[in-house]
Amino acid sequence: MSFESLWADQSAIGRDPETGGYTRGGWSPTEREATHWFLDQCVTRGLPVESDAIGNLIAWWEPRGEPAGGPGIVTGSHLDSVIDGGAFDGPLGVVSALAAVDKLRAEGFEPGVPIGIGAFVEEEGSRFGMPCLGSRVAAGVLSAEKALQLKDRAGVGLAEALEKAGLDPAGLGPSPLLKRMGTFVELHVEQGRGLTAPVGVASSIWPHGRYRFTFGGEANHAGTTLMEDRHDPMLTYAMTALAANKQARLTGARATFGRVSVEPNGTNAVPSQVTAWLDARAADTGTLESLLAAITRQATERAERDGTTLEVTPESVSPIVDFPAGLRDRLAAVLDGAPVLPTGAGHDAGVFSDAGIPTAMLFVRNPTGVSHSPAEYAEPDDCLAGVDALAAVLKDLAQ
Amino acid sequence: MSFESLWADQSAIGRDPETGGYTRGGWSPTEREATHWFLDQCVTRGLPVESDAIGNLIAWWEPRGEPAGGPGIVTGSHLDSVIDGGAFDGPLGVVSALAAVDKLRAEGFEPGVPIGIGAFVEEEGSRFGMPCLGSRVAAGVLSAEKALQLKDRAGVGLAEALEKAGLDPAGLGPSPLLKRMGTFVELHVEQGRGLTAPVGVASSIWPHGRYRFTFGGEANHAGTTLMEDRHDPMLTYAMTALAANKQARLTGARATFGRVSVEPNGTNAVPSQVTAWLDARAADTGTLESLLAAITRQATERAERDGTTLEVTPESVSPIVDFPAGLRDRLAAVLDGAPVLPTGAGHDAGVFSDAGIPTAMLFVRNPTGVSHSPAEYAEPDDCLAGVDALAAVLKDLAQ
Repeated sequence: MSFESLWADQSAIGRDPETGGYTRGGWSPTEREATHWFLDQCVTRGLPVESDAIGNLIAWWEPRGEPAGGPGIVTGSHLDSVIDGGAFDGPLGVVSALAAVDKLRAEGFEPGVPIGIGAFVEEEGSRFGMPCLGSRVAAGVLSAEKALQLKDRAGVGLAEALEKAGLDPAGLGPSPLLKRMGTFVELHVEQGRGLTAPVGVASSIWPHGRYRFTFGGEANHAGTTLMEDRHDPMLTYAMTALAANKQARLTGARATFGRVSVEPNGTNAVPSQVTAWLDARAADTGTLESLLAAITRQATERAERDGTTLEVTPESVSPIVDFPAGLRDRLAAVLDGAPVLPTGAGHDAGVFSDAGIPTAMLFVRNPTGVSHSPAEYAEPDDCLAGVDALAAVLKDLAQ
Repeated sequence: MSFESLWADQSAIGRDPETGGYTRGGWSPTEREATHWFLDQCVTRGLPVESDAIGNLIAWWEPRGEPAGGPGIVTGSHLDSVIDGGAFDGPLGVVSALAAVDKLRAEGFEPGVPIGIGAFVEEEGSRFGMPCLGSRVAAGVLSAEKALQLKDRAGVGLAEALEKAGLDPAGLGPSPLLKRMGTFVELHVEQGRGLTAPVGVASSIWPHGRYRFTFGGEANHAGTTLMEDRHDPMLTYAMTALAANKQARLTGARATFGRVSVEPNGTNAVPSQVTAWLDARAADTGTLESLLAAITRQATERAERDGTTLEVTPESVSPIVDFPAGLRDRLAAVLDGAPVLPTGAGHDAGVFSDAGIPTAMLFVRNPTGVSHSPAEYAEPDDCLAGVDALAAVLKDLAQ
């Protein structure tokens, strides 16, 4: 099946007719629809699918005449999305994997080792707040016990979400799927205007931290309390958001306050508390640490002036992922010297690489750099170049 | 019954054991409990209670030997609260009214005209977003049609809330209760350290506006999008919140952003939209208008730099309420020259005054100025002085 028709088919699932965006939280109805579409595609191709307890999937193209079950080359990505996200982040890697396998089979290629197509669940963490939830649990980086403490915004626990999806939370833990993952190659849309060629190869994933900033003040009447009598945590937060932006610009890093929660959140009340989450990333750990320190220092100084309090809690901090140089260089050579570049985005590929699996990534050009938005885009010709590149890489690795 | 025991009784209802605060949205279980407590008190005293369709209540002490039904002197306040508010804002006026009537009856005072004790519903607007909802509908300032379009944060419409409380939304509209409201006197805790004596008399209510600021930008990936490629409405909002604070300080006014809503509100996404509500008040209309203009100008300038958009929508703007000078001076004289002061807070008294009912307010000293917070406080001696003052005023007016 052509990439174009696969893409048209898949990207129709769960598109919000108003925004053009996608909201596919892990195990949600829209994400399940996309997952069932993937399963149908695997059945159509006669590719047996293996699943684990959390819902990660790998469909296998076994070498003819070989006993099934040995380790192979796995490609793929994820089908979930952020809230009102774009069409490409995740699904492009899964659809390109199907199209690359179709291309290799149409060419009569016979793999020397199994080729797997993976779809890993809740990569964005948009439902349970933990990015790469599926791959982290599969790799044993996140224990079943900790994962089962997660709740979504509606208060639904992970066990309940899994049961509703027909999965068995009792089986949660390091995944048997990974035993067959000899090598992992994830194709993904690039997300920051970092790529001027159609296709590139990843060098590393920037270190990345999520920090909860809790600004405490004193609730008060918005109409009567003198401005000088207030301890308004909104002001401390506002200055901190501006400081984060400025510090990230100064250091070539990224710092974002995209999530805020206000108590009591009433129009006529000075807030008692503002909680805001800082997403910070930088090219190396030293830069990330000094970025966080500079933001925290400015926030603390402002809190002293406002008579408010500040607590900074790291929720998750991921060190840099350096993809293995040998595999990376082999891919770049297969692709005639394709550009090699880092990314500020986390990926399941980073989790698998950290788990000791030889891992590489391919990027497809993003002309605007927009991602996690309905406006996310890649040119059709670049997507086709991505499929060709992935097919060439699989052919090389699975000879 | 003594003020102290009435107060202890009433202020136990619905107190959050964790924060010490109260959350009594209109027609909510906690507000209904407080209302039923009030009805019990009226029954105990043999005071017949009249209600209207929205749930406003007036209990009547009719002059002996007089036919019931003529216009009288009404006092009272409200029993609802903001989210996690204090004990005094509202209930102090209702409890003091009961205690003042008890005092006058114990003294053997015989009123020449009826004395009413009122409890008006959803004064804070904390459930349906419309302050003075009960008095506005009663006074015909807000039509039944518009009121019935209101929904609370859970999406429950006003009609459903009324029906659950045993009220009849079909009867909504100008209230027959007001026909008997010859004069209205509301006792209320002062809310801004404006009063150094135990009791004062209101001169005016500051003009007050609520404006919705909608900051539009472009959702994007928090990890990959270059800082200079972003159109982040959070930054425009943050600068606007700081500008509002500064402008209010410069003009001796009040400006507060206490309520914020972010889309998509994900940790790893640059927001597509931030909606924030400005509560602004000033001593006169000119100052309020120039305050809003200055904040809007600074926000617009920043939006241009951020590549974001800004829309400012007035949700409610209340002009200044000047309480009638004759009544005000009469109260001040009865209270031996009690101080006369304005307030930045809206009150049902303002709505009734605007509706042409001769209206006055008494304030009880607030030593810290804290209000709309669990820490809201008034000294017991000052509360007793408030009861004595209210009794003296009722005696004077109802002779």
